[in-house]
Amino acid sequence: MVGVTVQRALVRITGDGRSNGFDTLVAEEPLEIRIGGEAAAVTMRTPGNDFELAAGFLLTEGVVERGDQITEMRYCVDEPQQYNILSVTLTGDAPGMAASGFRNFTTTSSCGLCGKASIDDVRRRAPFDVRADTITVSPSILQRLPAALRDAQRVFERTGGLHAAGLFTADGELVCLREDIGRHNAFDKVIGWAATHQRVPLAGHVLLASGRASFELVQKALLAGVPVIAAVSAPSSLAVQLAEESGMTLVAFLRDETMNIYAGAERVTG
Amino acid sequence: MVGVTVQRALVRITGDGRSNGFDTLVAEEPLEIRIGGEAAAVTMRTPGNDFELAAGFLLTEGVVERGDQITEMRYCVDEPQQYNILSVTLTGDAPGMAASGFRNFTTTSSCGLCGKASIDDVRRRAPFDVRADTITVSPSILQRLPAALRDAQRVFERTGGLHAAGLFTADGELVCLREDIGRHNAFDKVIGWAATHQRVPLAGHVLLASGRASFELVQKALLAGVPVIAAVSAPSSLAVQLAEESGMTLVAFLRDETMNIYAGAERVTG
Repeated sequence: MVGVTVQRALVRITGDGRSNGFDTLVAEEPLEIRIGGEAAAVTMRTPGNDFELAAGFLLTEGVVERGDQITEMRYCVDEPQQYNILSVTLTGDAPGMAASGFRNFTTTSSCGLCGKASIDDVRRRAPFDVRADTITVSPSILQRLPAALRDAQRVFERTGGLHAAGLFTADGELVCLREDIGRHNAFDKVIGWAATHQRVPLAGHVLLASGRASFELVQKALLAGVPVIAAVSAPSSLAVQLAEESGMTLVAFLRDETMNIYAGAERVTG
Repeated sequence: MVGVTVQRALVRITGDGRSNGFDTLVAEEPLEIRIGGEAAAVTMRTPGNDFELAAGFLLTEGVVERGDQITEMRYCVDEPQQYNILSVTLTGDAPGMAASGFRNFTTTSSCGLCGKASIDDVRRRAPFDVRADTITVSPSILQRLPAALRDAQRVFERTGGLHAAGLFTADGELVCLREDIGRHNAFDKVIGWAATHQRVPLAGHVLLASGRASFELVQKALLAGVPVIAAVSAPSSLAVQLAEESGMTLVAFLRDETMNIYAGAERVTG
């Protein structure tokens, strides 16, 4: 099994010349998720918290509606392998791959597809109405979150190559931190942790992304019932649109004393 | 048709208080690629250079082997839509979706799947042997590339949210620059530009990524015959492994006077 980091030899060039050395790299390996023996998806990910990653992926793609619709997850051990295949068993009432937005989106989107249509689809699939979530967060709490996330990240310092997602309470308490080379995987791991601990919907929580806020991240947060999403870097146009239309709060460019609130500014108060 | 950027209202919080304003966001919209009328893929992308994006995607996924196997690309206009669906027509001798690594990877990977297996698969599919490419690049040329990329990027300054890919000659001349909210899309746009200009394989060229070097980017560069890939940030373990096993040169953490060479250091000389 590959760890979260690996050591690699390298040649380093600096103003002082050329030298041989070693570097710590973030590990990247494929993870295949199988449902009932059928390959459902392959994602490139940083090994670690794979069961959470799979659970979060299945929840945010609509393959399951709740964590308890997953009855078993195990690494496939039929042949020698490197812990890169997960077999998942679902309950009979789980929507399954055929009903998931994942397949629907890629196979049945009609000629009318556009940002609007896909947003409608996501909203229709979202089982929780975050609009009703009365959480408020003060700017001073929000301002402390990026530093709290960085302090809690151990891998980043060594590799410079990991995205992080941090789940916080409205008081700024860190509930769950997960890292991955893919920003969407970090989100899936946090949401999968919540799903497997029966904590979805994540009402009253803030989900912080260490990088940009894309449509995909807002979508995942919405499908997990998160009312407030914050990002250290820029949001995309469609991320803002989805947050606004869904009644989520979206804060981005969260740096030092400044932040931009693109949607749901009424929740940032005090 | 959505532009590369969009204007959004926001609430800004700084040390001086709260104010209303506007911000320029990078646009993110879905692009559906159809082949022979069948939906083949949907990618979230920044609008612009869509034909190049589609061509690069099809080439690096193995759906076509050469740019001239694409006979037509047009926006779907059967129903009102927002330039988010591309219809592509291929020649009869193009491999097509069924033969692409895209589908193979997600549907036929056996229980023996691991990083090694997927790397073998990519190498087997690569039509060009970059090992034979005799390009050399001097450290001083490489050091100038990130600034050259940033200077040529117009959108980034306004939105802070775009990845860029820059294709350079060994002398550091910028041949093609493309931007996107997704790093893989920026690579696909550059490679698609090359494919539609009959410039693949990209022997003797350097492809620079504005962010990290993931497995996916090295894979795309390899499938386009690029011998040298450089990145401003960290590489992943699998990116280094693929570069090394394929005879590519991989330079990362390319910042100011320093850089790390993780594979093919013999090409960085002079």
